[in-house]
Amino acid sequence: MDRRQLAELLAAVRRGDCEIDDALARLRGMPFEDLGFANLDHHRALRNGFPEVILGEGKTAEQVIAIAGRMSAVGASVLVTRLAPEVGAALLAALPGFEYHATPRLALRRTEAAEPAGRGTILVVSAGTADLPVAEEAAVSAELMGNRVERLYDVGVAGIHRLLDRRQRLWEAAVLIVVAGMEGALPSVVGGLVDRPVIAVPTSVGYGTSLHGLAALLGMLNTCAAGVVVVNIDNGFGAAAAAARINRCAP
Amino acid sequence: MDRRQLAELLAAVRRGDCEIDDALARLRGMPFEDLGFANLDHHRALRNGFPEVILGEGKTAEQVIAIAGRMSAVGASVLVTRLAPEVGAALLAALPGFEYHATPRLALRRTEAAEPAGRGTILVVSAGTADLPVAEEAAVSAELMGNRVERLYDVGVAGIHRLLDRRQRLWEAAVLIVVAGMEGALPSVVGGLVDRPVIAVPTSVGYGTSLHGLAALLGMLNTCAAGVVVVNIDNGFGAAAAAARINRCAP
Amino acid sequence: MDRRQLAELLAAVRRGDCEIDDALARLRGMPFEDLGFANLDHHRALRNGFPEVILGEGKTAEQVIAIAGRMSAVGASVLVTRLAPEVGAALLAALPGFEYHATPRLALRRTEAAEPAGRGTILVVSAGTADLPVAEEAAVSAELMGNRVERLYDVGVAGIHRLLDRRQRLWEAAVLIVVAGMEGALPSVVGGLVDRPVIAVPTSVGYGTSLHGLAALLGMLNTCAAGVVVVNIDNGFGAAAAAARINRCAP
Amino acid sequence: MDRRQLAELLAAVRRGDCEIDDALARLRGMPFEDLGFANLDHHRALRNGFPEVILGEGKTAEQVIAIAGRMSAVGASVLVTRLAPEVGAALLAALPGFEYHATPRLALRRTEAAEPAGRGTILVVSAGTADLPVAEEAAVSAELMGNRVERLYDVGVAGIHRLLDRRQRLWEAAVLIVVAGMEGALPSVVGGLVDRPVIAVPTSVGYGTSLHGLAALLGMLNTCAAGVVVVNIDNGFGAAAAAARINRCAP
Amino acid sequence: MDRRQLAELLAAVRRGDCEIDDALARLRGMPFEDLGFANLDHHRALRNGFPEVILGEGKTAEQVIAIAGRMSAVGASVLVTRLAPEVGAALLAALPGFEYHATPRLALRRTEAAEPAGRGTILVVSAGTADLPVAEEAAVSAELMGNRVERLYDVGVAGIHRLLDRRQRLWEAAVLIVVAGMEGALPSVVGGLVDRPVIAVPTSVGYGTSLHGLAALLGMLNTCAAGVVVVNIDNGFGAAAAAARINRCAP
Amino acid sequence: MDRRQLAELLAAVRRGDCEIDDALARLRGMPFEDLGFANLDHHRALRNGFPEVILGEGKTAEQVIAIAGRMSAVGASVLVTRLAPEVGAALLAALPGFEYHATPRLALRRTEAAEPAGRGTILVVSAGTADLPVAEEAAVSAELMGNRVERLYDVGVAGIHRLLDRRQRLWEAAVLIVVAGMEGALPSVVGGLVDRPVIAVPTSVGYGTSLHGLAALLGMLNTCAAGVVVVNIDNGFGAAAAAARINRCAP
Amino acid sequence: MDRRQLAELLAAVRRGDCEIDDALARLRGMPFEDLGFANLDHHRALRNGFPEVILGEGKTAEQVIAIAGRMSAVGASVLVTRLAPEVGAALLAALPGFEYHATPRLALRRTEAAEPAGRGTILVVSAGTADLPVAEEAAVSAELMGNRVERLYDVGVAGIHRLLDRRQRLWEAAVLIVVAGMEGALPSVVGGLVDRPVIAVPTSVGYGTSLHGLAALLGMLNTCAAGVVVVNIDNGFGAAAAAARINRCAP
Amino acid sequence: MDRRQLAELLAAVRRGDCEIDDALARLRGMPFEDLGFANLDHHRALRNGFPEVILGEGKTAEQVIAIAGRMSAVGASVLVTRLAPEVGAALLAALPGFEYHATPRLALRRTEAAEPAGRGTILVVSAGTADLPVAEEAAVSAELMGNRVERLYDVGVAGIHRLLDRRQRLWEAAVLIVVAGMEGALPSVVGGLVDRPVIAVPTSVGYGTSLHGLAALLGMLNTCAAGVVVVNIDNGFGAAAAAARINRCAP
Repeated sequence: MDRRQLAELLAAVRRGDCEIDDALARLRGMPFEDLGFANLDHHRALRNGFPEVILGEGKTAEQVIAIAGRMSAVGASVLVTRLAPEVGAALLAALPGFEYHATPRLALRRTEAAEPAGRGTILVVSAGTADLPVAEEAAVSAELMGNRVERLYDVGVAGIHRLLDRRQRLWEAAVLIVVAGMEGALPSVVGGLVDRPVIAVPTSVGYGTSLHGLAALLGMLNTCAAGVVVVNIDNGFGAAAAAARINRCAP
Repeated sequence: MDRRQLAELLAAVRRGDCEIDDALARLRGMPFEDLGFANLDHHRALRNGFPEVILGEGKTAEQVIAIAGRMSAVGASVLVTRLAPEVGAALLAALPGFEYHATPRLALRRTEAAEPAGRGTILVVSAGTADLPVAEEAAVSAELMGNRVERLYDVGVAGIHRLLDRRQRLWEAAVLIVVAGMEGALPSVVGGLVDRPVIAVPTSVGYGTSLHGLAALLGMLNTCAAGVVVVNIDNGFGAAAAAARINRCAP
Repeated sequence: MDRRQLAELLAAVRRGDCEIDDALARLRGMPFEDLGFANLDHHRALRNGFPEVILGEGKTAEQVIAIAGRMSAVGASVLVTRLAPEVGAALLAALPGFEYHATPRLALRRTEAAEPAGRGTILVVSAGTADLPVAEEAAVSAELMGNRVERLYDVGVAGIHRLLDRRQRLWEAAVLIVVAGMEGALPSVVGGLVDRPVIAVPTSVGYGTSLHGLAALLGMLNTCAAGVVVVNIDNGFGAAAAAARINRCAP
Repeated sequence: MDRRQLAELLAAVRRGDCEIDDALARLRGMPFEDLGFANLDHHRALRNGFPEVILGEGKTAEQVIAIAGRMSAVGASVLVTRLAPEVGAALLAALPGFEYHATPRLALRRTEAAEPAGRGTILVVSAGTADLPVAEEAAVSAELMGNRVERLYDVGVAGIHRLLDRRQRLWEAAVLIVVAGMEGALPSVVGGLVDRPVIAVPTSVGYGTSLHGLAALLGMLNTCAAGVVVVNIDNGFGAAAAAARINRCAP
Repeated sequence: MDRRQLAELLAAVRRGDCEIDDALARLRGMPFEDLGFANLDHHRALRNGFPEVILGEGKTAEQVIAIAGRMSAVGASVLVTRLAPEVGAALLAALPGFEYHATPRLALRRTEAAEPAGRGTILVVSAGTADLPVAEEAAVSAELMGNRVERLYDVGVAGIHRLLDRRQRLWEAAVLIVVAGMEGALPSVVGGLVDRPVIAVPTSVGYGTSLHGLAALLGMLNTCAAGVVVVNIDNGFGAAAAAARINRCAP
Repeated sequence: MDRRQLAELLAAVRRGDCEIDDALARLRGMPFEDLGFANLDHHRALRNGFPEVILGEGKTAEQVIAIAGRMSAVGASVLVTRLAPEVGAALLAALPGFEYHATPRLALRRTEAAEPAGRGTILVVSAGTADLPVAEEAAVSAELMGNRVERLYDVGVAGIHRLLDRRQRLWEAAVLIVVAGMEGALPSVVGGLVDRPVIAVPTSVGYGTSLHGLAALLGMLNTCAAGVVVVNIDNGFGAAAAAARINRCAP
Repeated sequence: MDRRQLAELLAAVRRGDCEIDDALARLRGMPFEDLGFANLDHHRALRNGFPEVILGEGKTAEQVIAIAGRMSAVGASVLVTRLAPEVGAALLAALPGFEYHATPRLALRRTEAAEPAGRGTILVVSAGTADLPVAEEAAVSAELMGNRVERLYDVGVAGIHRLLDRRQRLWEAAVLIVVAGMEGALPSVVGGLVDRPVIAVPTSVGYGTSLHGLAALLGMLNTCAAGVVVVNIDNGFGAAAAAARINRCAP
Repeated sequence: MDRRQLAELLAAVRRGDCEIDDALARLRGMPFEDLGFANLDHHRALRNGFPEVILGEGKTAEQVIAIAGRMSAVGASVLVTRLAPEVGAALLAALPGFEYHATPRLALRRTEAAEPAGRGTILVVSAGTADLPVAEEAAVSAELMGNRVERLYDVGVAGIHRLLDRRQRLWEAAVLIVVAGMEGALPSVVGGLVDRPVIAVPTSVGYGTSLHGLAALLGMLNTCAAGVVVVNIDNGFGAAAAAARINRCAP
């Protein structure tokens, strides 16, 4: 339940369109709901602008379905990340309204069709083809949060003309998410070309001294382009959440 | 020379208030100027919204003064970070218009009095007293970039009521910079309380397994609060630059 | 064989209820018993208050069954941790009196029903649903050691009201075990709220820079809450053993 | 102000021995007091059983004196750890009632003579002579918190008879703090000999692969003696705080 | 071909018992023999006292069989370490005279029955049952190299009486190989009890901060017992080779 | 499309052998071609002397085939590295003209038979048999780039006579690629014997403290033989690319 | 004594211009000369193309002077790197013909004026002003080895136009040495623009997660630009030695 | 007091040459003596063959003198390692019979002139001049323990003929200590040339990725020469102690 849904509920109560008891029932779960093994933080959307996300990794199918089911029941958007295909299939079989995205390995349930509400466009830029799963996790998550999203993929620094030729698209974005593995140099170059916020996402793409993404992470943290910020390795969702916070209009 | 200064210059040329030759002289340094050992990137302000910053560490007093002098000569704001007091003193002795801030160890030269131009307030939050130098580097840098800045210091998570009692101040900020050493847990708690962008700055405060700030950095990168982004250890300036990019009004 | 069992045996000998030869047979294994590939430390319960635990990982089913069988034969409680389900099934098929717990992946054999003997309650707190296996390893182990155990799960710091609303339960515990992965911030917050011993257990939950639990571990070791102590990553049993030592009544 | 002091104050108010205004003045600082650069957490003693400790490292003499002065003013015990001798001298010159301990490099101010209130004795064991500063930080801190403390120094595992000959002293302690650098093996051996809580403190003593104490820390975290818990490298104070929590009598 | 075999060959030539051509044929492979993908170092036994060992890991069955076959053909003892069971089976099927040891996962071919030739006994000591594969790799390798070997297993430091009760056996050994995972403390205790060379072998037994054996390795390198030396993690063969060099009689 | 192919195309246009429209069609893809998920950098051969290589790892069979197909269509040589056998089989089934090399796990498509064009011979030296996959990745890649390549395998430093006996071959090479795992000492010895460029390639061969090749990498970076340069762990292709750049004749 | 000097000596002997005894005296030191604490490798120039370099760090002034004196005595060029200014001053006072370069902290003695003998120009490129000491160590070393050297400094990727505008200079170099600290992204961009060998030198410039240059090193090792090779952190001399090997004409 | 001294004392008692009371006085200190801050392990020489060594680092001059004084008083040889020159000077001023060695930074007191008692010669080999302090710590320590010691310095692998030319000296040693920094390759080469025990000592010589000796350590642990064992970085004393244990004649 986010801020808008809550305001509507309260307005409906004022108008008499919603019985007090019904409103109470809807609000009952707040601020959290105890499933025994999980405490759903139902008013996170009110505080943070987006409902609690479910990290699929390390949870059983039963746990994922139970949590996603309760969140659906209170009318929230639901996002499950890092979800193995077989668990995703179980989720779709168990609950209506969910879709599974294979490349970013995530499942989601949209409430009503969210029309993009952010200030501008979030541009997701990626260095290589192997970075696609993470880039798509960011892009799909940002769309679910109600943002207009564009994609610019496979423009790594070893062929820098591919990037420079799209300078115009970089300049038009309100927020940029730049996804790169290996040496992670792309955010530094992008950060030097624009004056908008740049969120760098290191990926675990690479081998040997890439150290499962640590090399890219370190490169991004040590960027010589002031104003670039960083999230965890492969954390496309986190980048989307930060971009959405930035892109959101002030009330 | 930033976007506004350049627009004024061009307008003055159009109005006939500025001779072509004078305009050329002002623009001559662009896009960069070769000092032999340094290539000043004079139009970085145009691209990134703020002039190139000088990292004081690892440069001789002569180099700092030469670079800062050239930047002053073209009318730019100048910021020198991580500057030892004795080099700072040499800089103030050599060039007019500079001030030195002892706690964050930085020197700066303001051009005209910048009236805050950002959308809202940048709130700098710190966990402990020992984090002050980094918090102040962020706060002073953000002010120099034309932002309204507020401070909320020494509200670490071991006494969480200190933070919760100031919830209102957290909610009123447009962007939050959260500075913490040791376990670096503060940004997670703050990130869970607000729906605005939170920039986490790990500091090297601590000992033993703090690993010179790596523990705090890792804590922040692994935050369970979606929407928190991170910069390098002790990088108060970088956090300010990112916050300023976020806070800036769209043209 | 623990202190109580030994005292009873000696009393039985004094009363004449137990033949000398039988007593000798029971005591024969002490202080240790050589299985060739293993030296069972039968009087560990006397020294440490709990029998030797069997680390299931890295042992064959044959070895686990042989060791567990000898320990059962001398009448000890038996606990096997980190035990793969298929090895657990083999154990249950081979030896009577064992039960297997799937979530914490452990097998155990209780001697007589131990009534809780500790000073107070051990409260096991966990940050997220994915931390359950480790939290349950701690909870079940502590119960087997004769403690009263309560559970408070999924109260991570990103929704800190979930924790603060249960402050009363935190205050009533004699010892707290706080289990968390990712940034591992929960023990710092809990440690700041109570005046009882807090044992922090980092888990390997997370990805990328969680470094298989190292991030959480470092966060806990650098806690700003004085009085928090730490055990190895995912070591729920170790936390239970420490909590039991603390909770035990003085003789 | 700890629980006892607060109870006395309230009792004095009830008895009429203390004017309401005076009580208010004493309580005014609660729950925290804002010095601008520091928020003193005056009711930490109520929550955690001991006032906030001041980490001397990374603070200027002015900051240390200001914070210590305010804490003295509200009648609290004060402990400053990791304090350079010259800053310690400045503190003693500025404020009455402080003493400086050179080996553990800490300063403290005792309120009234605390008679040991804990359940039993805290025994501080150290492996080598070079571990003394950390061992003394633990011992002096524990004494200041109102515990009976004994010391057993230089009994490292390379000459294990030195330890075994003092087995009796190990058995008589209620809580043990075991301090060791280099390979950090001592807590494992001690933990195997007693059934009381053992708090292991790794020290930065060693060279090369001791990695400034990481080798000792890792050894302690991987102990095969169940029930050993660990604190940060060189964190004698933290071990004392945990030991005091354990040793404290239930109300 | 080792020193003794070579001397016998030359003596046979002198006596006329061996034709020059036959001798040449036997010596042809020396000093190395090029298989295209491998250069067999046939005179390594002459230089180092033992033939080249084959590291099974990372080689195909075809490569292992080809190399082992050539070594057999020139009459050498053959040892293949870290050999997966299925490759071991293929080796036994392809070449006569080989045996496979399942616990240490190694295959070997003995030349004539080597009667122990070393100065004394090599004692292999292990801390836990899970260390057996490495301990057995050391023991079997040392036997193959012609040493008398004894075993003392599962005597870790958490139950130190198990070790102290066998002090006599420790004192009687000429060289000691001490195998331990987790905190790796056993070699320090053993090294302090004897005056013979102690070779410490860290194993990858453990989890979490054991870091796949790095914790044990660091503990052993930082031993406070002077005279303890260390080999790579899980390198039982390397320890045996060093022990054999030490135990060998001077010519 | 490389420099030579481009020159021929332009010459054909000038001669009238190629229609303008056909030339345009061939050039259309330049400088890059957008496949949606990939931007093929078709003029990389013009800039770097060799077409873009495809990293097979982390790409689906569909992606590999799509990219390789487009590169084939414009007439380029194609090289796919780190390609699982089953994906390699799919590629060979889908596209004509490809061959798969099992040892180095790479697929390639040669354009016309390239006669060696470099200044001299590239010698690939390897320390052990287990290093073959990386050595062959280097050798085959260098051949594909038009170099004469020789191989000298299994000449590790523990039997240094195997290397010294081939000194002549070392001296005759124009560039040397030296591949080694474990301690990675071979490049130092080779670098001290020749005056030609030596490219060191660490491999992930080893176990325990080899840390998946980091030990070999560090050894090579710290070589005492001046003039040795290093590439990423297991990066045979990268070494070949550097060797080819060095060996190429100046225009 | 290098190859040319040796050839001249032999020619002089043949011509009768040099007495046998004198020639013997000059050759006497070969192949090495034992100073007790040092074995000068006088024929390294013959093998590697440049005399042994003296690493100044970790040697006393006495040792540096003794070694440099012997090398001067046999007529060799001498290069001492990482030499503290005060030791450099002692060297200049003790031996004639030496010069000290303050920025790269090195001392050298040129034999006759070496006219550039390499195939082309070595271009030294650096990312920032703070990288100058390392860049100059490379440049001065390469000049001493008889190469034509050009410099292009302060062209880091955050202002990429500074680099792109000098594309022509990049294309004209025969070998490129690219020096960068912080994220170390410059070699990737340069490597993508040229088809000549690129030697990347990471520097320790940076703070926090730069980890004293490890971040830059990892970035360079994981470069997506094939054909970039890497040397140790701050190893300007090593890069020069490799570049000289590459640039040298074949005999 | 070592085994021989003890035997002589007992014989003197039997002969009547020594009064019972005097013998008791001499034996009083055994098995250890409590100085309050230190427990001298006087019978370590009996158990380990050499008295306890004093690690000078991290001890005050007062502590060093007190411990060394007590050890002298009971007639033991005394060795203090890693001793700063100024503390060494204080020791020599305070106690008679001590000498200070500046290169290895150690102080020692010899009891009677020990004539070499070991089986053969210990050869200390070092790679570079900067490794001398560690090599000398090993050599001097081994001499003090009663061994015949020879030195072979500055024979690193980049000029391998320096080593090969001294092959004879390598073959004649009973035990070899090989000291090397940087890539640490020398023990592998030496280990491949001899059949005697080789003890490798990594040193902290190097910079950048030498990681204060970790690179050399890792190289040595991963040696491809079977039979090489390793001690801590810079631990010359530890290598000497191990070599002495090996070289000692069996009783």
